[in-house]
Amino acid sequence: MKKINFKDKLQKFSDQWSPKVIAELNNYQFKLVKIQNDFVWHKHDDTDEVFIILKGKIFIEFENETVELNEGEMIVVPKGTKHRPYAKKEASIMLVEPRGVLNTGDIVDEMTAPNDQWI
Amino acid sequence: MKKINFKDKLQKFSDQWSPKVIAELNNYQFKLVKIQNDFVWHKHDDTDEVFIILKGKIFIEFENETVELNEGEMIVVPKGTKHRPYAKKEASIMLVEPRGVLNTGDIVDEMTAPNDQWI
Repeated sequence: MKKINFKDKLQKFSDQWSPKVIAELNNYQFKLVKIQNDFVWHKHDDTDEVFIILKGKIFIEFENETVELNEGEMIVVPKGTKHRPYAKKEASIMLVEPRGVLNTGDIVDEMTAPNDQWI
Repeated sequence: MKKINFKDKLQKFSDQWSPKVIAELNNYQFKLVKIQNDFVWHKHDDTDEVFIILKGKIFIEFENETVELNEGEMIVVPKGTKHRPYAKKEASIMLVEPRGVLNTGDIVDEMTAPNDQWI
C-alpha cells in the first residue's frame, strides 16, 4: 500500500501547465499541475473537472465571473462550461477528472500537454 | 460558480465517522469526515476509495501492514481490499468515491452512517 505525499510529488517536476498523474481511482485520475500566467479558454464537453488548490492562489475566469481560489479550496467546473484558469504567481493545484481528459479540452494548441504523464 | 473552502465546511459539523458530501464530480462524491478511535474492518467490493488527509494523522490497517497518513497525504484503497481506518486524536479527511458508497462497505452495523448528507 503506497501513500502519496503532495509536497514530495511537487518536488519531482518544475514545468508549468503540464499535468502529472499521481493516482488513479477506478478510471479517474488525480493530477498535480503547476500553473502561472494565462491558460487558454476551453471546455470539457464530456466531464466535470475538479480543481483543488494545494499551494498559492489561482483564478478561474468564466464567461460571467472570475473566481479566486486559495490553498484549501476547491471548485467543480461543470462539463461544457467555458473556463480559463490563470495565476499571477506560480501555484500548485490538483485536478481530478476521468482518465484521458486533455488539459486544453476542446482546443488543441501549444498549451496542450501530453496525457498520462505519471510521476 | 461556487467554490468550496475545506475549513469552512469542517466547521459545519462535529459528529465523527459520518461523511458529509461537499461536492460532486460527475457521479463521484467528495466527502469530509472527522474520525477518531477505531472503525470497523470492511471493504468496498465495487470501487476503489481515496483518502486525503486535511488535518491530523490517521492510520489505515490492512491485512499485512498499517499505513500512517498525515496532512498533505493521500492513499487509494483498491476495491475489495479489507481495511480499518483509525485515528488516535481527531483527524479530518476527505473521501472521494462514487455516489452511493456506504462508509462501512460490506458491513452494516452501528457505525454505518446515512448516505448523501450534504453540508
